[in-house]
Amino acid sequence: MVGHKDTPVFILVGPQMGENIGACARVMGNFAIPELRIVAPRDGWPNDKAVAMAADSPVLENARLFESVAHAVSDCQVLYASTGTPRNMVKPTLTAREACGRARAEIAAGQRVGVLFGAEKSGLDNADITRADAVLALPVDPEFSSLNLAMACGVIAHEWRAGDPPPGGFKPVEGRASQAELEGLYQHFHDELDRAGFFYPPEKTPLMMQNLINLFARASATEQEVRTMRGVIKALAIGRGKARVVRED
Amino acid sequence: MVGHKDTPVFILVGPQMGENIGACARVMGNFAIPELRIVAPRDGWPNDKAVAMAADSPVLENARLFESVAHAVSDCQVLYASTGTPRNMVKPTLTAREACGRARAEIAAGQRVGVLFGAEKSGLDNADITRADAVLALPVDPEFSSLNLAMACGVIAHEWRAGDPPPGGFKPVEGRASQAELEGLYQHFHDELDRAGFFYPPEKTPLMMQNLINLFARASATEQEVRTMRGVIKALAIGRGKARVVRED
Repeated sequence: MVGHKDTPVFILVGPQMGENIGACARVMGNFAIPELRIVAPRDGWPNDKAVAMAADSPVLENARLFESVAHAVSDCQVLYASTGTPRNMVKPTLTAREACGRARAEIAAGQRVGVLFGAEKSGLDNADITRADAVLALPVDPEFSSLNLAMACGVIAHEWRAGDPPPGGFKPVEGRASQAELEGLYQHFHDELDRAGFFYPPEKTPLMMQNLINLFARASATEQEVRTMRGVIKALAIGRGKARVVRED
Repeated sequence: MVGHKDTPVFILVGPQMGENIGACARVMGNFAIPELRIVAPRDGWPNDKAVAMAADSPVLENARLFESVAHAVSDCQVLYASTGTPRNMVKPTLTAREACGRARAEIAAGQRVGVLFGAEKSGLDNADITRADAVLALPVDPEFSSLNLAMACGVIAHEWRAGDPPPGGFKPVEGRASQAELEGLYQHFHDELDRAGFFYPPEKTPLMMQNLINLFARASATEQEVRTMRGVIKALAIGRGKARVVRED
């Protein structure tokens, strides 16, 4: 897991349901955002429902409890306040993508960046939003705008990683066929189709081959797949011969 | 809400828990992804727990039930298979950001795009992944990679909208001060600070003023805030005079 200083800190202010705290911790673990701070959770701490929903996330084990927002954010130079409700406040509003872009530069410059999340029902107080550098507002449908708390944490956690590559186990297509192997396939197609009388009228042959070749070029075929296709051509060509023999009998 | 044809279709294959189906429907509603298809949910359909978690999402009301993946995706030209488990399969792997970028072009070209999600425990069958154009793999921590099903839907739903602006209620900073108003503030600062003997040695005056001006320029001050600051300067200057009078008594 990456160092704590390389990622934003998520701060849940007065969360009500342990389930949501646990689900936040789980998704923060999924996207390697290690540092969760919890301010005055409604049902006390520790919380069994949080543990159940966290699915053994190391983020929950390391979560820290605070009595006030001021204490929870004291070491942060930069704060973003996540809210779905516009306030009558002079404050820049950023989407998660914009905020993550800014936070990346801020963290690279050695700053601690915190993201504040309010309670499920009420959201953040104006006093908490006031201390933030900017409001973080997700691009929701105005007619159905209320996100679950853990979901809000989750989409911002994912956005922080969205430019990263897939995990290492997912490899790009391997064993790609060489152009010479593909050329062999195309020639094989050409010869057998020519023998079968496929190219009619003959002057259309180049265009018909071009269409066929484009399909296989787009498919990013592997060596194995080229061998399979050549087996397929062979089988069909022989089968065609057999079928004709049967029909001619 | 945007038209159905302008967004990907989400297909839950054999989901186990109604709660997760409901949470998917809720977050799809949040990010205006209207079309949910459900293949053979474990606990039948309709499902009370799904209704409870959907928080009146219109997506749940309009969700369609299918018996097989083949039926659920029959009108889709393009399929992405969301999975956290690499398979031994020759298939391109894309992150949510990459897949959303491609899907946007595909949808603009009139294609129906489906995103497949597997069951909570098992994920998608290899047979379902095989029919997809590409695997969609989120950039998770390999040491804690298992996402909740609704969270996976949620981060992809958000990613689809991540380049959009914040909702209309969130406005950029309004009532910005003009440069003339700011100049008035800076001159006021200069005059009162000069009178107070702040600029010492005098040759440092331009640099000291530059530092002060930079702070206010960065703050994107409004007209109202400029007026407030001028009141603050005035109050402090008078206060200082009073304090001096007191001390001199």
